[in-house]
Amino acid sequence: DFLNALKEVTPSFGVSEAELQQCVANHIIPFGPSVKQILVDGRLYVDQVRQSSRTPLVSVLLTGPAGSGKTALAATIAMQSDFPFIKLISPESMVGMSEAAKVTEINKIFNDSYKSPLSVIVIDAIERLLDYVPIGPRFSNSVLQALLVLLKKKPPKDRRLLILATTTHRNILEQMDMTDEFSAEIYVPTITSLEGIDAVLQQLELFTEEEKARALSILSEANMDNKLAIGVKKLLMIIEMARQDEDKVDKFVNTMLAL
Amino acid sequence: DFLNALKEVTPSFGVSEAELQQCVANHIIPFGPSVKQILVDGRLYVDQVRQSSRTPLVSVLLTGPAGSGKTALAATIAMQSDFPFIKLISPESMVGMSEAAKVTEINKIFNDSYKSPLSVIVIDAIERLLDYVPIGPRFSNSVLQALLVLLKKKPPKDRRLLILATTTHRNILEQMDMTDEFSAEIYVPTITSLEGIDAVLQQLELFTEEEKARALSILSEANMDNKLAIGVKKLLMIIEMARQDEDKVDKFVNTMLAL
Amino acid sequence: DFLNALKEVTPSFGVSEAELQQCVANHIIPFGPSVKQILVDGRLYVDQVRQSSRTPLVSVLLTGPAGSGKTALAATIAMQSDFPFIKLISPESMVGMSEAAKVTEINKIFNDSYKSPLSVIVIDAIERLLDYVPIGPRFSNSVLQALLVLLKKKPPKDRRLLILATTTHRNILEQMDMTDEFSAEIYVPTITSLEGIDAVLQQLELFTEEEKARALSILSEANMDNKLAIGVKKLLMIIEMARQDEDKVDKFVNTMLAL
Amino acid sequence: DFLNALKEVTPSFGVSEAELQQCVANHIIPFGPSVKQILVDGRLYVDQVRQSSRTPLVSVLLTGPAGSGKTALAATIAMQSDFPFIKLISPESMVGMSEAAKVTEINKIFNDSYKSPLSVIVIDAIERLLDYVPIGPRFSNSVLQALLVLLKKKPPKDRRLLILATTTHRNILEQMDMTDEFSAEIYVPTITSLEGIDAVLQQLELFTEEEKARALSILSEANMDNKLAIGVKKLLMIIEMARQDEDKVDKFVNTMLAL
Amino acid sequence: DFLNALKEVTPSFGVSEAELQQCVANHIIPFGPSVKQILVDGRLYVDQVRQSSRTPLVSVLLTGPAGSGKTALAATIAMQSDFPFIKLISPESMVGMSEAAKVTEINKIFNDSYKSPLSVIVIDAIERLLDYVPIGPRFSNSVLQALLVLLKKKPPKDRRLLILATTTHRNILEQMDMTDEFSAEIYVPTITSLEGIDAVLQQLELFTEEEKARALSILSEANMDNKLAIGVKKLLMIIEMARQDEDKVDKFVNTMLAL
Amino acid sequence: DFLNALKEVTPSFGVSEAELQQCVANHIIPFGPSVKQILVDGRLYVDQVRQSSRTPLVSVLLTGPAGSGKTALAATIAMQSDFPFIKLISPESMVGMSEAAKVTEINKIFNDSYKSPLSVIVIDAIERLLDYVPIGPRFSNSVLQALLVLLKKKPPKDRRLLILATTTHRNILEQMDMTDEFSAEIYVPTITSLEGIDAVLQQLELFTEEEKARALSILSEANMDNKLAIGVKKLLMIIEMARQDEDKVDKFVNTMLAL
Ligand SMILES: Nc1ncnc2c1ncn2[C@@H]1O[C@H](COP(=O)(O)OP(=O)(O)OP(=O)(O)O)[C@@H](O)[C@H]1O
Ligand SMILES: Nc1ncnc2c1ncn2[C@@H]1O[C@H](COP(=O)(O)OP(=O)(O)OP(=O)(O)O)[C@@H](O)[C@H]1O
Ligand SMILES: Nc1ncnc2c1ncn2[C@@H]1O[C@H](COP(=O)(O)OP(=O)(O)OP(=O)(O)O)[C@@H](O)[C@H]1O
Ligand SMILES: Nc1ncnc2c1ncn2[C@@H]1O[C@H](COP(=O)(O)OP(=O)(O)OP(=O)(O)O)[C@@H](O)[C@H]1O
Ligand SMILES: Nc1ncnc2c1ncn2[C@@H]1O[C@H](COP(=O)(O)OP(=O)(O)OP(=O)(O)O)[C@@H](O)[C@H]1O
Ligand SMILES: Nc1ncnc2c1ncn2[C@@H]1O[C@H](COP(=O)(O)OP(=O)(O)OP(=O)(O)O)[C@@H](O)[C@H]1O
Ligand SMILES: [Mg+2]
Ligand SMILES: [Mg+2]
Ligand SMILES: [Mg+2]
Ligand SMILES: [Mg+2]
Ligand SMILES: [Mg+2]
Ligand SMILES: [Mg+2]
Repeated sequence: DFLNALKEVTPSFGVSEAELQQCVANHIIPFGPSVKQILVDGRLYVDQVRQSSRTPLVSVLLTGPAGSGKTALAATIAMQSDFPFIKLISPESMVGMSEAAKVTEINKIFNDSYKSPLSVIVIDAIERLLDYVPIGPRFSNSVLQALLVLLKKKPPKDRRLLILATTTHRNILEQMDMTDEFSAEIYVPTITSLEGIDAVLQQLELFTEEEKARALSILSEANMDNKLAIGVKKLLMIIEMARQDEDKVDKFVNTMLAL
Repeated sequence: DFLNALKEVTPSFGVSEAELQQCVANHIIPFGPSVKQILVDGRLYVDQVRQSSRTPLVSVLLTGPAGSGKTALAATIAMQSDFPFIKLISPESMVGMSEAAKVTEINKIFNDSYKSPLSVIVIDAIERLLDYVPIGPRFSNSVLQALLVLLKKKPPKDRRLLILATTTHRNILEQMDMTDEFSAEIYVPTITSLEGIDAVLQQLELFTEEEKARALSILSEANMDNKLAIGVKKLLMIIEMARQDEDKVDKFVNTMLAL
Repeated sequence: DFLNALKEVTPSFGVSEAELQQCVANHIIPFGPSVKQILVDGRLYVDQVRQSSRTPLVSVLLTGPAGSGKTALAATIAMQSDFPFIKLISPESMVGMSEAAKVTEINKIFNDSYKSPLSVIVIDAIERLLDYVPIGPRFSNSVLQALLVLLKKKPPKDRRLLILATTTHRNILEQMDMTDEFSAEIYVPTITSLEGIDAVLQQLELFTEEEKARALSILSEANMDNKLAIGVKKLLMIIEMARQDEDKVDKFVNTMLAL
Repeated sequence: DFLNALKEVTPSFGVSEAELQQCVANHIIPFGPSVKQILVDGRLYVDQVRQSSRTPLVSVLLTGPAGSGKTALAATIAMQSDFPFIKLISPESMVGMSEAAKVTEINKIFNDSYKSPLSVIVIDAIERLLDYVPIGPRFSNSVLQALLVLLKKKPPKDRRLLILATTTHRNILEQMDMTDEFSAEIYVPTITSLEGIDAVLQQLELFTEEEKARALSILSEANMDNKLAIGVKKLLMIIEMARQDEDKVDKFVNTMLAL
Repeated sequence: DFLNALKEVTPSFGVSEAELQQCVANHIIPFGPSVKQILVDGRLYVDQVRQSSRTPLVSVLLTGPAGSGKTALAATIAMQSDFPFIKLISPESMVGMSEAAKVTEINKIFNDSYKSPLSVIVIDAIERLLDYVPIGPRFSNSVLQALLVLLKKKPPKDRRLLILATTTHRNILEQMDMTDEFSAEIYVPTITSLEGIDAVLQQLELFTEEEKARALSILSEANMDNKLAIGVKKLLMIIEMARQDEDKVDKFVNTMLAL
Repeated sequence: DFLNALKEVTPSFGVSEAELQQCVANHIIPFGPSVKQILVDGRLYVDQVRQSSRTPLVSVLLTGPAGSGKTALAATIAMQSDFPFIKLISPESMVGMSEAAKVTEINKIFNDSYKSPLSVIVIDAIERLLDYVPIGPRFSNSVLQALLVLLKKKPPKDRRLLILATTTHRNILEQMDMTDEFSAEIYVPTITSLEGIDAVLQQLELFTEEEKARALSILSEANMDNKLAIGVKKLLMIIEMARQDEDKVDKFVNTMLAL
C-alpha cells in the first residue's frame, strides 16, 4: 500500500541518505489527501528536471506552519527522484560555523551538484540557515545573498538541478525578495480534521479501538473539528507523552484541548 | 518525608554533580502544592525519554519570575533522573567568553551527550547565555541560533536526550521564536500565600513559634495575603538579613511590607 | 530572418563569450516591437562610443520587472558590438567573496578594459552585486561606492568604454544616487498581450496549432489580454512545466490564470 | 568623636587600601543623620556576610545624585569591614582597556576574592565601567553581562563575598535588569539644608564665625533652605574656589545662588 | 580670446597636471556671465593666499547641481594659480581603498603640501570621498573627521595653502558641520537659458547654422527658456548622442524636451 | 599695555609651547570687556590649583560659537600659568589615528602630567577628538569614556592638574553627561557690537581712519549693531579677503552685510 511503498524508497546513489532518512524517522502517515498530492507534485518537478533541456534548473519552496511535515516531505521527494546526487543542506550540520564558512559550504555543495548530470539539493529551514531572528530583524545577509544567487545560477551545459527548500517563514523570505526566485511553491498544511487525528492515532497504536473512539468523541463534543490545526510533528509528541501517563485517554484529550 | 527524600538524590554517574548540588544549596522547601507537582511532571518527562523510541528528544522550558526557584527545580529534576550523563550549561562558567567560544562550548556539551544512551542537559538562564539586555534589545544571535538548532537536533540512533532550560524572560524567548521549539513548558510560581511564608520560616528557624505567629499576624493584618508574590530566593535573603538585626520580627516584617 | 541573425552574433575577440552566450540560452524571441527597438537603441550607443571622441565613456542602465529579459538583451547588445574587449560582471562568479574582494575584482575588470581601444562591460543585476536586501535595507556600501566612481571614471586617452548594467530595482538605485550617473536608460517590458504569448508558444512548440488556439481562446475569454504582465523568463518556465503534464493545455491555462 | 573614629579605620589586610583611602581624601563629614545611618546599614551587611552561611553572597547598590558621596561611603564601609580581601574595581584603572580586557580584569578580581574566606569588592561607577552614554544609548554589553553573572555567582564552599557598587544612573541599571540582581540598595542623598552647609563650612574652615553667619543668612534670605540640593563633592569645590577670591563670602554666596 | 587663454594655462610645477587637465577635457565654454565671474573670484582667493600672512589657509567650496562643471572649474582655478604644488584628491584614485588607507593618503597629500611655500589642493566630490549614500545615511566618518580637521589645520610657518573642494550635496556637508569650516563658497549654476545652449552648440559644431536655428526655435516654442536647467556635462552628452542619429535635429530636440 | 603684556607670555618650561603659540597667531585683541574677564577668571583657576590641596584637580570648559576665540583664550590661560607642564591635546595631531591609539595618546599625556607637581592640559575641540558628527549621531565612545574618566581622576599625592577644554557643541557634551564632570565653565562670546568691530579693524590696519569711519557708518545704518554676532576668527578672514580687493570698503561692507 501507499505507506509501505514510501518505506521502500532508497536512492541508488544518494550522498546524504542517512540524514534524509532521519528526517522521515516517523514515516509519512497519509492523514489526508494533501499528503499524496504533495508527493505527486514533487514527482512532476523531478520529471521536468529530468526531461526539459530548456529549464535545467527548477527550484521549489515548501512552506507551512511549524511541524507540519515540510522537512519529511522534501526529503521524501528528494529520495524518490533516484537522482545520482542528492544532498541535504541543513542548519544542524552548521552549528557554530561563521557566516563565511556557511557560504563556502553551501557554495561547495552547489558546485559538487554541477558535476552530476541530475541532482537534487534539499535546503532545509532557510530561516535558520540565515540565522534569522524577528527581533531587529537580524539575519546573515551573506548567506542570504549566496542563496539568492545560487537559486538562479544555471548549472553548466548538460547538467540539471532540482532545488527543494523548506521554511516556516514564507513572509520573511518574501520581504527578502527570495520567493520570486523560486520556480514554484508547495504549501504543506497542518491536520485540521478529526479524521486526520484518527489516521495518526491508528498508525501509532496509542489506544485500543475503544479508547480511541472515546478520545475522539470527547474532542468532537468540544467542537475540536472546527478549530483544529495541529502539525503532525506536535501530534506525535503529544501521543508519546500521553503514552507515559496512567490514564492515556485523559492525558491525550486534555493536552489536545489545552492547545 | 518529602524533604529528606530530596536530599538523598545523587545521580550514579553525573558529570556536573557539584554545580547542580550548589543550585539547590538551600534545599527544596515544599511551601505549596505547586512544588511537588513540578517535580512529578519532571519525572514524567524523564520517563518519556527513557521509554519512547519515537521521541528520542524531549525539551522542557521552566519559566517564572526572578528568584522563584527555577534553577533549583531544574537541577533537582535532572539529578533525580539517574541518567548517566547530566550536564549543566550555565552563564557562570562562561564569563568573558567570546560568542564563538560559547557556541563551541555549548555544541560540545550536546555532542558529548550524544555519546551517552540517556542524557540530561540543563540550560540555565537562557537570557543570560544570550547576553540579552532589554535596551536595544541586544543579544548574541550566534548563541541564539545555536540553541534554536540544538533544541531540535535529534540525537543519533539509540541515543536519548532530555533538555531542561530555565528563563525569567519567557516573552523574549517567544519573540525569538524559541518557545515553539520546546516540547513542553513548566511554570514556576512565586510564593503568594502566608501559608507559604509560614512553611519557609518554619524550615529556616528564624523565629520562635511566638515570634513567627506575631510576624505573620502583622502581615495578615496588612492584607499581605492578597498582594503577596515573592520568590523563595528573595524570601531567604530577607530572612537572613533579619537574622542580623536585634529586633528580628520588626526587621522581617518591615522589609516584607516595604516590598 | 531576425531571430537567425541574432544567433549568428559572435564577437571576434570576446573574453566572456561563454558566459554571455549562456545568458541568451533560450534565444531572443521577438514577441513584440519593444524587443527590436531595444536592440536598435543598443547599437546606437555602441556607435557613439566607437565614434565620438568627446564622450569616451557611455553608460546605459537596463531596467524592468523580474524575468523581463534584461540580462539576455544586455548580453546580446554587448556581443553585437564586436568590440575586442567584452566582459561580464555577474554576481554568479562572486558567491562568497568578501566585499573587498568584489571591489578588487570589479576594479580589475575596469582597469583591464582601459587597455583595449574599445570595450563593453556588462554589469548584471546590480542590486545583487550590492548584496541588497529590502529589510533594513542592507547593502554593500563599498561595492556601491566603487561602482559610483567607476561609472564616471573616464578611460585614459584613446580608450573608449560602453557600460551596460541591469537591475530590477531601479528605485533603489535612484535612492542611492546611482541612476544620475548613467548616460541613458532602457526600459525592458514584460509581455502584456496575447499576441506576445502566441509568439513565444509558437517558438517553443509546446502545442499543436489546434491546442494553441484553444489555450489562447480560454485566456482571451478570461480577459487575460487586459491584465497580462508576464516576464518572458517566467513564461518559458510555465511552458516547460506544462510540457510534463498529461493535459498540457489544461496545465498551461490554469497556471497562467493563477498568476 | 564620630569623625575621628572614621579616620582611624585601617583594614588589617586590604589589597586596594591606597586607592580606597584616596576615595575618602576629604574625609566623611557628618553633615546630617543620613550619613551615619548609611554607615550603620553598611556594617549590618558586613555582619550578615560574616555570619550567615545561607547567604554567602550579599550585594548592595549605592545610588544617588552626582557628587553625593557614594564612592567615599562605599570605600569607608569596605575599609571598616576589616575583611582580609578588599578590592576596588574602578574605571580609573581601566582607561583604554578593550571590553574583553575589562571583563578579564573584573573576572580575575572576583576569582581572587573566592580564595579569601571573607571578601569585599567595591565596584565604583558602574555606568562608567559599562562605557555608558545616553546617546543611543551605547554601552559595553560584554561588561554588563559579566557583571550580571558575577553579581549572582555564589562563591565556592566556605567563601563569603560582599559586593558594594555605586551608580548615579539607577534608572539605567534598572532598564538593564541589573537592579534586580542586588540583595539591597542604599540611597545617598545630597545636602538639602543650611544646617548641612553649616556643618561642612565649619569643617573646612573657610570662614570666620562672623563670615559664616553672614553667608548663611544671605542664603537663608534667598530661600535657599527650600530649593537646596547640592552634592558634598560640589560643595567642597565651591568652597575651595571661594577661598581664592578676595571677597570669599561674596564669591561663595554668589556661586551657591547661581546653582 | 577668453577660451584660448584658458587653454594655455599650464602650471610651472604642477604635480597632478595630467589628472587636472583631464577634468577639463571639453574645455571651459563661456556659456554665460557666471562662468567668467567664478574664474575671477577664484583668482582673488589665489591672490589672498599668496599675499596675506594672517590667513595662510584659505578654503573654498564649489557647490552646484550634478554636471554643472564644478570639477572642471576647480581644476582650472588651481592650474591658473601657478603655485609650485597643485594636487588633486579624487575618489577615482582611491577605488577599493579602506577607510584608513584613504585617510592616510589624504593626510599625506596635506603633509606634502606643507613643504611647498604655496600650494593648492583640489578635493573633488567630497560626498564620494566620504562614501556617502543617502540610505541610512551611511558615510565614512573617519574620512569625514580627517577632512574636518585638515580643512582647519594651519600650515606651518611661512607655508600657505589654498583648498578647493567640490560637492553636489551641499546640504549633506552642512548637516555634517563641514560647510562652517570653509572660508568661502562658490555656487556653480546649470545652463538656464537658450543663449547658453546656443553658445555650447556653437562651440561643439553639431549643427549647421540653419539646423541650430531650427532646433532652438522648437525649444523656444516649447517654452524651454522658462524651465531649462541642464548641466553643461549632460548637454555635451546629449549633443554627442544626437550626433550619431540620422536626424540630428530631431534627436537633439526630443531628448531635450524629454528631460 | 594689555595687548603687549599678552605677547610677552612665555612659560618657563612648556612642552607644547610652539603649538600653543600658533593657536594665538593673531594675538588676543581686546575687542570688549568679556575678553579681559575671561583671562582674569582663568588666572583664578590657575591659582586654585596652585594653592588648594583639597582640590588637586580643577577642570574648566570653554564653550562658545564657532570662531569666537576659545582655542586662543585657552592657550593663553595655559601659557600664563607658568606651570612646568603645559600640554595641548588637539585633533590636529591625531589625524588618521585609530580610536584606540587616540585613547592611548590621551591617557599618556595625563600620565605624564601626573609626574609634574603642577600641570595644565588643554583639550582642544572635544567634539572633534570624539569624531562627533550630528548625523546619527556618531562619535567615538571609547575616546568619550576615556575623557569622562580622566576628567575626574585625581592626580597622585602632591600632584596638581588644571584641565582647560574647548567645544562649540556644549549641548552635545551635556547629552553625553560630560558637562557635569567639569568644575566650572567659561562662555566665550562672539563680537556683537560695532565697537568690537572697530577695535579689531583698528588693530589689523585694514583701512585709513576715513575708510573705517565710512565702513562702520554703512554698517550702522544697516542696523548691524542689533543683529551682529560674528566670531573674531571669521572677522579676521573677512578683513584679509577685503584687503585683496580694489575697493576694500565695498568688499568688507558687502561681505559683512551678506552674513
Ligand atoms: N504525512 C506526513 N507528512 C510529514 N511528516 C509526517 C507525516 N506523517 C508522519 N510524519 C512525521 O512527522 C514528522 C514531521 O516533522 P518535520 O520535521 O518534517 O516537520 P517540519 O514541518 O519540517 O517541522 P519544522 O517546522 O519544525 O521544521 C516526521 O517525523 C515525519 O516522519
Ligand atoms: N520550593 C523551592 N523551590 C525552589 N527553590 C527552593 C525551594 N525551596 C527553597 N529553595 C531554595 O531557593 C533558592 C532558589 O533559587 P534559584 O536560583 O533556584 O531561583 P531562580 O528562580 O533560578 O532565580 P533566578 O530568577 O535568579 O534565576 C535555592 O537556593 C533553593 O535551594
Ligand atoms: N525577447 C526576449 N528578450 C529577452 N529574453 C528573451 C527573449 N526571448 C526569449 N528570451 C529568453 O528569456 C530569458 C530571459 O531571461 P533573463 O535572465 O534575461 O531575464 P532577466 O530580466 O535578466 O531576469 P531577472 O530579472 O531574473 O534578472 C533568457 O533565457 C532568454 O534567452
Ligand atoms: N558625608 C560625606 N559623605 C561622602 N563624602 C563626603 C562626606 N563628607 C565629605 N565627603 C568628601 O566628599 C567627596 C565625595 O565624593 P565622592 O567621589 O565620594 O562622590 P560621588 O557621589 O562618588 O561622586 P560621583 O557621582 O562623581 O561619583 C569625597 O572627597 C569625600 O571625602
Ligand atoms: N563653462 C564650463 N564650466 C565647466 N565645465 C565646462 C564648461 N564648458 C564646458 N565644460 C566641460 O563640461 C564638463 C563639466 O564636467 P564636470 O565633471 O566638471 O562637472 P561636475 O559639475 O564636476 O559634474 P559632477 O556633478 O558629475 O561631479 C567638462 O568636460 C568641461 O570640460
Ligand atoms: N579677543 C580674542 N579672543 C580670541 N582670539 C582672538 C582674539 N583676538 C584675536 N584673536 C585671534 O582670533 C583667532 C581665534 O581663533 P580660535 O581658533 O581661537 O577660535 P575658536 O573659537 O577656537 O574657533 P573654532 O570654533 O573654529 O575652534 C586666533 O587667531 C586669535 O589669535
Ligand atoms: Mg523542518
Ligand atoms: Mg536561576
Ligand atoms: Mg537578469
Ligand atoms: Mg563616585
Ligand atoms: Mg565633479
Ligand atoms: Mg578652536
